[in-house]
Amino acid sequence: MTATVAGTDHLATDQFVSALRAQSQRYHSLHPFHRRMNEGSLNRRQVQGWVANRFYYQASIPRKDAAILSNCPDPEVRRRWIRRIVDHDGTGPGEGGIEAWLSLGEAVGLSRTEVADERHVVPGVRFAVDAYVNFARTRPWVEAVASSLTELFAPDLMAERLAAFERHYDWIDPAGLAYFRARLTQAPRDSEHALEVVTEHCRTPAEQAAAVAALAFKNDVLWSMLDAIDQACR
Amino acid sequence: MTATVAGTDHLATDQFVSALRAQSQRYHSLHPFHRRMNEGSLNRRQVQGWVANRFYYQASIPRKDAAILSNCPDPEVRRRWIRRIVDHDGTGPGEGGIEAWLSLGEAVGLSRTEVADERHVVPGVRFAVDAYVNFARTRPWVEAVASSLTELFAPDLMAERLAAFERHYDWIDPAGLAYFRARLTQAPRDSEHALEVVTEHCRTPAEQAAAVAALAFKNDVLWSMLDAIDQACR
Repeated sequence: MTATVAGTDHLATDQFVSALRAQSQRYHSLHPFHRRMNEGSLNRRQVQGWVANRFYYQASIPRKDAAILSNCPDPEVRRRWIRRIVDHDGTGPGEGGIEAWLSLGEAVGLSRTEVADERHVVPGVRFAVDAYVNFARTRPWVEAVASSLTELFAPDLMAERLAAFERHYDWIDPAGLAYFRARLTQAPRDSEHALEVVTEHCRTPAEQAAAVAALAFKNDVLWSMLDAIDQACR
Repeated sequence: MTATVAGTDHLATDQFVSALRAQSQRYHSLHPFHRRMNEGSLNRRQVQGWVANRFYYQASIPRKDAAILSNCPDPEVRRRWIRRIVDHDGTGPGEGGIEAWLSLGEAVGLSRTEVADERHVVPGVRFAVDAYVNFARTRPWVEAVASSLTELFAPDLMAERLAAFERHYDWIDPAGLAYFRARLTQAPRDSEHALEVVTEHCRTPAEQAAAVAALAFKNDVLWSMLDAIDQACR
């Protein structure tokens, strides 16, 4: 009997993970603006607009992850989750993902200042990113962890984006693409942990549905950002 | 003129720091229960009650500090503040301040389980600690930083407490007092940073008054915890 129950549980977990992975069908890699970016058909101003707007997302990620830490009662989860914050903030001046994104800004011809002061960030991007941070602050922490699972889909996107940038936008110094390269290894490590947490904590159909909904919400955030950038950079 | 203005600013900062330091007059070291503890007049059950209840505070500290991280827009401040979370959570199993407090629990004759599951935590302690975490989540982040400044007064208290425990409570294994020893060096480092942040960001009388009020609030949290423990452990 125990074997059957365990078997059923395991099947349920597999189906749950499949439902999470199926959300890749709504990932922002499919957005028209993103397709045009990877096809090489964006002009310099449009690439700059994407980089400057996306900075607001990058700069907000540590605050989103700190909100998850703040809501999470399990020190063992916190010990692993905190690495995300260190990845983005770095351990000293000039380090970390936010700095790497500022370097990307310089590589596409924007000053550090005009990226860092967020002057180019359009309202739709701000609203979407703020919604993500607020989600992490106010929803149960396991749902917020589930919302991070777009990282399951990120390595493919990053690899394609790296290749596309190197092929189509040769005016961008390849050294400026360090952020994308770092995420090739960080995202799989992070999504593996997040998937462990979500499959361990989401056992009931309601919990699993909430996790899938959280991931769908995150897809909406990323898609909505590209909608706003697309509108602003025509 | 610049020198005069700078001089005035500096004087204002000195007065502000004095007002913060004056809050030591309301620090929980002066609470009757704490005085009895340091005089050696608590019985074993009362020491155990204090340790078990205070665990709820220790376990909540990383969540309070993560709330501050989440609200703080400055990566440079976050890079230093995050060390507090690592101090309490550790970087692996068995490490960090929360684990050290569980060891203190064992040293005073409580099982890890009965401390960790918070069965002995009384409502008044829970309310006070939750108020502190909620303060950090909902108030401006600089005020939350100011509320941490009880650490200015902590080293004296820790040194006295260590001496008192070793003298009066010889039934407690001194190895169990590692948490107090660690705080002797962590608290000055932390309060130095917090004081830098607060004096840099609180320039107007209103901002400075809010910082002093935040520190007074934190004193109320610590005092209220001892009130509740005192009532529960007679």
